[in-house]
Amino acid sequence: MHCDLLLKPRWIVPIEPAGVVLEGHVLAVHDGRIAALVPAAEAAHWTATQCLELPAHVLLPGLVNAHTHAAMNLMRGLADDLPLMRWLGDHIWPTESHWVSTEFVRDGTRAACAEMLRGGTTTFADMYFFPETVAEVAAEMGMRACVGLIVIDLPTAYGRGPDEYFDKGLATHDRYRGHPLVRTAFAPHAPYTVADGPLQRIRTLADELDVPVLMHVHETAHEVEQARAGHGQRPLSRLDALGLLNDALAAVHMTQLLPEEIERVASRGVHVVHCPESNLKLASGFCPLAALHAAGASLALGTDGAASNNDLDMFGEMRTAALLAKGVAGDAAAMPAAEVLRMATLGGARALQLDEQIGSLEVGKAADLIAVDLAPVETQPVFDPVSQLVYSAGRQQVTDVWVAGRRRLQAGELVEVDMAAILANTRAWGERIARRREEAR
Amino acid sequence: MHCDLLLKPRWIVPIEPAGVVLEGHVLAVHDGRIAALVPAAEAAHWTATQCLELPAHVLLPGLVNAHTHAAMNLMRGLADDLPLMRWLGDHIWPTESHWVSTEFVRDGTRAACAEMLRGGTTTFADMYFFPETVAEVAAEMGMRACVGLIVIDLPTAYGRGPDEYFDKGLATHDRYRGHPLVRTAFAPHAPYTVADGPLQRIRTLADELDVPVLMHVHETAHEVEQARAGHGQRPLSRLDALGLLNDALAAVHMTQLLPEEIERVASRGVHVVHCPESNLKLASGFCPLAALHAAGASLALGTDGAASNNDLDMFGEMRTAALLAKGVAGDAAAMPAAEVLRMATLGGARALQLDEQIGSLEVGKAADLIAVDLAPVETQPVFDPVSQLVYSAGRQQVTDVWVAGRRRLQAGELVEVDMAAILANTRAWGERIARRREEAR
Repeated sequence: MHCDLLLKPRWIVPIEPAGVVLEGHVLAVHDGRIAALVPAAEAAHWTATQCLELPAHVLLPGLVNAHTHAAMNLMRGLADDLPLMRWLGDHIWPTESHWVSTEFVRDGTRAACAEMLRGGTTTFADMYFFPETVAEVAAEMGMRACVGLIVIDLPTAYGRGPDEYFDKGLATHDRYRGHPLVRTAFAPHAPYTVADGPLQRIRTLADELDVPVLMHVHETAHEVEQARAGHGQRPLSRLDALGLLNDALAAVHMTQLLPEEIERVASRGVHVVHCPESNLKLASGFCPLAALHAAGASLALGTDGAASNNDLDMFGEMRTAALLAKGVAGDAAAMPAAEVLRMATLGGARALQLDEQIGSLEVGKAADLIAVDLAPVETQPVFDPVSQLVYSAGRQQVTDVWVAGRRRLQAGELVEVDMAAILANTRAWGERIARRREEAR
Repeated sequence: MHCDLLLKPRWIVPIEPAGVVLEGHVLAVHDGRIAALVPAAEAAHWTATQCLELPAHVLLPGLVNAHTHAAMNLMRGLADDLPLMRWLGDHIWPTESHWVSTEFVRDGTRAACAEMLRGGTTTFADMYFFPETVAEVAAEMGMRACVGLIVIDLPTAYGRGPDEYFDKGLATHDRYRGHPLVRTAFAPHAPYTVADGPLQRIRTLADELDVPVLMHVHETAHEVEQARAGHGQRPLSRLDALGLLNDALAAVHMTQLLPEEIERVASRGVHVVHCPESNLKLASGFCPLAALHAAGASLALGTDGAASNNDLDMFGEMRTAALLAKGVAGDAAAMPAAEVLRMATLGGARALQLDEQIGSLEVGKAADLIAVDLAPVETQPVFDPVSQLVYSAGRQQVTDVWVAGRRRLQAGELVEVDMAAILANTRAWGERIARRREEAR
């Protein structure tokens, strides 16, 4: 056999089958897909255009960041350590209403893609204004994306209200149909910002177009209480009545769940996108991750935006998810490393309806791959490479990244990306935003 | 003025005075101490043996890891995701009882010092067997240490029981009296492993010798319940009756605290050493950090050992401490970034009775300094450098480290350290330990 790329790592963690760590195996990439994953002996006579030894590395699927607001990278650390409503009302919303534009989204999303690729994330789900610009940037950066088509009952710089959001969103959906890297999803902002009418339309359209629905759900106790006071029911019950509680829904946050709701979410195949660092930082509450897992719920992991995290680091997020789940459950055996790594790969792929293409190292899937070097003293010795990935490794140990077989990171440096321009633009936005905040004081 | 070293960073965070971020300032080092911290204009005509521009960096005091078991680096990731007693009884203790020796402690502590220095930690408090070896290695690595003289009512490879631990400990204390980098502390393991007799002796000796007392206290609910059943009182009350609740005590973990105990700890000046990642990973409970802070308690931060964390990353630990405090308190404004950074510097210095020497950038204090490069996309833009340090920066962004004015890290590489030998030894221990575990299966 001849292939484009033959990888010879110390360890391979294919995710599927679960719990497996392979040694002495090689992975072959051809035409952007995984062509083979076999013991090294079977590949002894294979030829490859490029052959790469990865002597102290783990090879695994690229990580899937199942929830972020990429452009918010430009507001990283703008206002921290504040109560949620002051953070939003006094800082984030005023900044957004003044600055958000296609330029802001383009530059912010570029910075976010650079950060994510450098840290081993190959796919992200986005929810922000100007999704057509997010799609454009993801494609340009050679990164896989599920771009959320935002719907919200409020006018923004992006549109006057639901009708315009639907029109623009459907145009973006049409433009990216069949695109090799970019797919779309509906992204109704949250139960408290989207009325029944637009949600019914989303339900119908999601069925017709076969796309996922991404939504912030039960993020805070306040949200649930308000809904009970207003509609007389909890948001999940309202979504259920609207026909949205099914396996097309990726429900983000989910910190407020009754035992009955955990069962319902699991039985309906709803995907829960856990964002532990954002939930902690904004004091939103604790998602009952171990209980959801025990109930058999489909689980994914997201960083949320850089304004509320403050990074797009899926390694840090995996560590926090694994640690916090144990603390919240009061059980040190809850959510073992391998389960959390599965959330961050195949779990995310499932939530975004991308699991036929990515999320595990299986023949025929896209070659979205990352190599993590465990040689540094920070991850030595190695008793279990999966433990090291989740509990010890930093994202800077990601040395190589491929998306659909195309090299995006090589020896820690992004390939075919004008990093100097991205950095200069990011700094310039920071200065511009800071100057106006100073003036407004 | 002439000085050995003149540093010109973009920002200086002196820690004391609190809440200050300096721009356009320089810091001068002479004879291992901070000689000046002044606006750049005042230093325009100063001469320096070495002058260093740090154009996108924050300069701050070296971090103080106020609780670790350095040699346990050799057991990193040995056995994860297990309930505490199975983790200890089936994995950690059998491994320790077979392997722990001066060689094990020497090699493990070297690996830990390398990891800590690379990550911006310049001082650590250790609690392990063979403390004289820990002291030797810290001095050899040019790192500041507070070496805990372990006392435990059990025979170990290090000694037969308290009498021998006291004899050996006091000899180590005498040997390092007046040492420029190494000081000692008493380290009674925990209330449930040390009887009243040795604790009384420690109280007397700590007073006489003027050294701190490091102890695991109220780590788990089980510990507190057992003590109530056995002694009829909670461990903190027992320590109080023994005269140990004072400002010499650095009480580690403290996850189980009644409101009255929070007040007592604060009013007595007890230092609380918070280890959030270890507490989460072992599901020990949540230390009420925000409540302790509100009560005015003295707070420090530690990573615990690499077998239960699984890293000695004080940047990660700061982030987890700041995030978790908000989640536990249900208040996004709890424990702002600057407070957590203070815990990780001056707070740790106070707990180890080293605050006259280190913990803040004040003239006359030792030049224990670190520079963190905020230029990478992961920490851009910069609205607030302290937010970036705590919420976004990774330890790999530490570029330069000095301990008592001596350069330990330069452009990310350790100085005068045989890193290849440390890595080879660490790997070799890993293989040896793994092989024996395989054979025992």
